Amino acid sequence: MAAKAGNSVGGVLPHPHVIGNAFAQHYYKILNESPEDVHKFYHDESILGRKPNSDGTLTSITTMRDINKHFVSTYLKGCSMQIDNVDSQPSHEGGVLVLVSGSFTVPDAMKRRFTQSFFLAPQKGGYFVLNDVLRYIPVEPGN
Amino acid sequence: MAAKAGNSVGGVLPHPHVIGNAFAQHYYKILNESPEDVHKFYHDESILGRKPNSDGTLTSITTMRDINKHFVSTYLKGCSMQIDNVDSQPSHEGGVLVLVSGSFTVPDAMKRRFTQSFFLAPQKGGYFVLNDVLRYIPVEPGN
Repeated sequence: MAAKAGNSVGGVLPHPHVIGNAFAQHYYKILNESPEDVHKFYHDESILGRKPNSDGTLTSITTMRDINKHFVSTYLKGCSMQIDNVDSQPSHEGGVLVLVSGSFTVPDAMKRRFTQSFFLAPQKGGYFVLNDVLRYIPVEPGN
Repeated sequence: MAAKAGNSVGGVLPHPHVIGNAFAQHYYKILNESPEDVHKFYHDESILGRKPNSDGTLTSITTMRDINKHFVSTYLKGCSMQIDNVDSQPSHEGGVLVLVSGSFTVPDAMKRRFTQSFFLAPQKGGYFVLNDVLRYIPVEPGN
């Protein structure tokens, strides 16, 4: 599932803001409605950074098979998602850097703020997610 | 000021975690102690995403001259900085994606949580910051 460069006309690439926003809108909708399809945004060489290890570093998940296993076992289907910001910049060798901040609220659980950084690498007809790092923002007492 | 690939021996590149951590340690120290030198991490083609415009998109700052103007006018010198996480992944064409979360506390002001994503692009002997997107995390009443 490539993030399509939908506004591309006659080889003129759309602005990275357009690419980043279109990607994020599509990505979180699929994550919310059909997590079994989210792995299609990725390739085998893609890297997901998720649950922290005991030393604080994130676990790296690669290959579409393991990425799919991760998404189908992470119950975000039907949760309430709020995307606060999607910031995109043109990056190295045709890529696009996207930084998202927002929150997930799973039923019967508290809202969890997150920040997520993606690197969209170019491929024929669009982009795929090469890098994806997600961190939850800790809730501090007194804030 | 290149982020040096300091542990590189005989052409073996250090792990992106090492590169990202060394970069972040150096970067925030310079930001805190001598903001007039921070622009040396960047090139003219680098892009800083900072203060939101009225439509919510970030202002893009480019060229070392304007990047320097930004840093010398942003008073973070001597503020208290806390870096909670530095997550790094190898990225497109020799680059490194770095996601940082932490907080700045300026004297007589409240702590401001931030998230910052960098793309470190390779250059001879190290890396430079090609992309830099910073967003403050809003404080929510009741959290």
